[in-house]
Amino acid sequence: MAALDDLLALCGEISDLGRARALLFWDERTQMPPRGAAARAEQLATLTRLRHRRLSSDALGRLLDSARTEVGDRDPDSFEASLVRVTRREWERARKVPADLRAEIARQGSIAERAWERAREASDFAAFRPHLERVVGLKRRYVECFDFEHPYDPLLDDYEPGMTTAEVRPLLERLRDGLVPLVAAIGERGGGADDACLHGEFPVAAQRRLAERVISDLPLEDGAWRLDETIHPFATGIAISDLRITTRFDPGYLGAALWAVIHEAGHAMYQNGLDPRLERTPLCRSASLGFDESQSRMWENWIGRGRAYLARMLPALGELFEQRLGSIDAEELYRAANVVRPSLIRMEADEVTYNLHIALRFELELRLFEDRLEVAELPDAWNALSREYLGVEVPDDRRGVLQDVHWAGGAFGYFPTYSLGNVIAGQLWAAMGADLGDLEARIAAGELETLRDWLGRRVYRHGGKLLPAELAARACGGPLDPEPLLGQLRAKFGEIYGL
Amino acid sequence: MAALDDLLALCGEISDLGRARALLFWDERTQMPPRGAAARAEQLATLTRLRHRRLSSDALGRLLDSARTEVGDRDPDSFEASLVRVTRREWERARKVPADLRAEIARQGSIAERAWERAREASDFAAFRPHLERVVGLKRRYVECFDFEHPYDPLLDDYEPGMTTAEVRPLLERLRDGLVPLVAAIGERGGGADDACLHGEFPVAAQRRLAERVISDLPLEDGAWRLDETIHPFATGIAISDLRITTRFDPGYLGAALWAVIHEAGHAMYQNGLDPRLERTPLCRSASLGFDESQSRMWENWIGRGRAYLARMLPALGELFEQRLGSIDAEELYRAANVVRPSLIRMEADEVTYNLHIALRFELELRLFEDRLEVAELPDAWNALSREYLGVEVPDDRRGVLQDVHWAGGAFGYFPTYSLGNVIAGQLWAAMGADLGDLEARIAAGELETLRDWLGRRVYRHGGKLLPAELAARACGGPLDPEPLLGQLRAKFGEIYGL
Repeated sequence: MAALDDLLALCGEISDLGRARALLFWDERTQMPPRGAAARAEQLATLTRLRHRRLSSDALGRLLDSARTEVGDRDPDSFEASLVRVTRREWERARKVPADLRAEIARQGSIAERAWERAREASDFAAFRPHLERVVGLKRRYVECFDFEHPYDPLLDDYEPGMTTAEVRPLLERLRDGLVPLVAAIGERGGGADDACLHGEFPVAAQRRLAERVISDLPLEDGAWRLDETIHPFATGIAISDLRITTRFDPGYLGAALWAVIHEAGHAMYQNGLDPRLERTPLCRSASLGFDESQSRMWENWIGRGRAYLARMLPALGELFEQRLGSIDAEELYRAANVVRPSLIRMEADEVTYNLHIALRFELELRLFEDRLEVAELPDAWNALSREYLGVEVPDDRRGVLQDVHWAGGAFGYFPTYSLGNVIAGQLWAAMGADLGDLEARIAAGELETLRDWLGRRVYRHGGKLLPAELAARACGGPLDPEPLLGQLRAKFGEIYGL
Repeated sequence: MAALDDLLALCGEISDLGRARALLFWDERTQMPPRGAAARAEQLATLTRLRHRRLSSDALGRLLDSARTEVGDRDPDSFEASLVRVTRREWERARKVPADLRAEIARQGSIAERAWERAREASDFAAFRPHLERVVGLKRRYVECFDFEHPYDPLLDDYEPGMTTAEVRPLLERLRDGLVPLVAAIGERGGGADDACLHGEFPVAAQRRLAERVISDLPLEDGAWRLDETIHPFATGIAISDLRITTRFDPGYLGAALWAVIHEAGHAMYQNGLDPRLERTPLCRSASLGFDESQSRMWENWIGRGRAYLARMLPALGELFEQRLGSIDAEELYRAANVVRPSLIRMEADEVTYNLHIALRFELELRLFEDRLEVAELPDAWNALSREYLGVEVPDDRRGVLQDVHWAGGAFGYFPTYSLGNVIAGQLWAAMGADLGDLEARIAAGELETLRDWLGRRVYRHGGKLLPAELAARACGGPLDPEPLLGQLRAKFGEIYGL
């Protein structure tokens, strides 16, 4: 197996460069002295370039050809066949985009991000518009590098390998059409839930202790993670057993850190559950961003905001925040954790309205890449859809079309993965319940390992071996389907809001 | 200047790979979750290999040829001429050693280090001997890759570019011959200094505050450093303005952290003082390990253990450690900071006897590589020299020949740089005094910036442009010379011990 060995060695180099880059990124956001920023940008660019050069190299192409012969008709699920198949897919995608175009997207994206910061501050879309037009123009050229049925397909494929607009669009439209009336009904009903108890004074030192305890209690390998503070929370993996969770502590609102920490730990549990054999290969990753998000959201929302889990957490909360939470009861905490309230800002949205923020962005991205909308028309379209989906009036672009940085950096096709993650979480939750029985009872009994192990067998251990559609079929027993999620949300929030 | 631009781009890549490796190393020792160790070893090996491949490449050779033509007869001190000259020197050294031999030294060194850990634990030299024999054998083959006058020259050159055994040997022998009688006289005299006040209970949290304050008070750029805890303290640079200082806090002995922090900050100040233009080139480093050590030791010993500096530190010490140091006077602190006491362990030695620990290792390394000593004879030779130089009896190999890990990893030629650093610090201190007048008065007046600026002009800003011998000639006004150091030590400790 000479070619396979050489392929593994080259994949190992590519992986190590990617992991080193992940550490540079994590360090930049959690540890780096501020004056290190300029040099760090160069270091990140170099590792990105060296990694891409290998991933798109003729040498890798030749190794893949030889390795395919060696692998022959081995089981497609085998490590060797998967390695060759998935690496070839990445190699082909890497080669389709000229290095110059890639570099130009990175460069313009970085310039546009800085322009966005200023424009958002001043709520001045006109100042941002030429930058965004350049980025959208480059992304249209990017799309043209691929064969596609729909011009949005290549963008989506960057995050959800193999998924097409034809599949995702009706799915997210059904989700949206199911949620708009639910959100409207909750809005009309009002009351029912109130999170005042989570606002007030929550000393950061105690929040930090809580966060450490929360992660320690989750089924995440001891000695394989750490928690640090940052501005925009994220989780990243330096290895299967070297996971970096980050969070932000808001001294005036406990919810900011508490569920964000469980969310990021959900990402970490997925990485931690990958088959160790996948380390240092392109298979050593989640099946897609949607699948990754399904885990952060399942642990955050379906476990972390559930009655059983919150009841278990209550004594620790009472002890750490005696004054605010010393006398709260479990039901009050449950309702505080599950307030639904249409709002302007995606980052602050609850789990129900969040999907409508995504629906809005998805619809606008489709119109942009179907050439049905110009960048100049974005603010009006944004505001109209906010009214239509969420029933909110956008007072200014800062709280509207300028609220997210992602488009500035060229991340089109990225937002839908959040809702896909919620949909997948809904399906997995249903399938797990069918297998394991009453999940709330399991959580109440402290059997989080049982849930983790089920998810590990069905999802985590496969890493990137399967395309998301294949994994959904095997893990959830069918294609992606918003109905389980819609049913769960209607049941849960129907009860809370007395609908 | 097309070739120079290409040379700069390639040097930038080589540098970025080295900096990323430095961050992986720092992270491993200060932040990494313990279960990340196995993957980290692979990541470090990959970055080392990719960096070396570039540094020894034909492409770099061709660029150096073309760039030399472009540079022509420009001033040898110019950035461009220095870049081509120093990069060529590194390229030539990198190509002289076959990749296989390099890999084998790394592999055997790593095996021998693990064997050393067990052998040291059991004080069992016989178990370590075959490993050390293999490492010495490989290093003898390494030496044969170079042209040399003395077989120790190529080893020394790894740390002190251009220095030869013929220069270093008489210099270190003069230092040794001057110190042996001084140490003996201090031993006979006894008393005079006592560090009991630095032993006792020193809460780690307060030591951490002290360490942060000490570094903040040194002339090190704000926002360009951080301090973390580790087992074996070190300092490393991720960029000129991104410096990582590490230390270890001993709750029972204040001295362990206090001067170690100043020592590591000394290394950081050197890096921080490099000309920013040198960033991302092979010039972006100290002139040699000896020069680097001259700065850590000057800041630690000549400034940090001096009367003026300690007097300035006294209020903070009294405030943070009220119980132990609330009523100590400046003279008592000065004497506690400057105890000289022959001992078995190099790592714990004071600034006078330290050089005799080095003299012993230097003598043994010379005998090994002159084929006058076999590995099997090392313990007896070690014990005899300990008696001769330090007047101490070695009770077992654990506290003798097995105390240091460095030989296991193949680091021969490394130990003498410590004493060279002390020698250079002595010469720089004399030259700086001649220029700036009474240095103690300057320190008493809080003019640490004045000292740093002098050192910056004379030493730091040049980076690796000059060979250490050239830099010594320019910065100290002559060749390396142990006399200033010997004079300073005789004066300082003669007064303390009443000799």
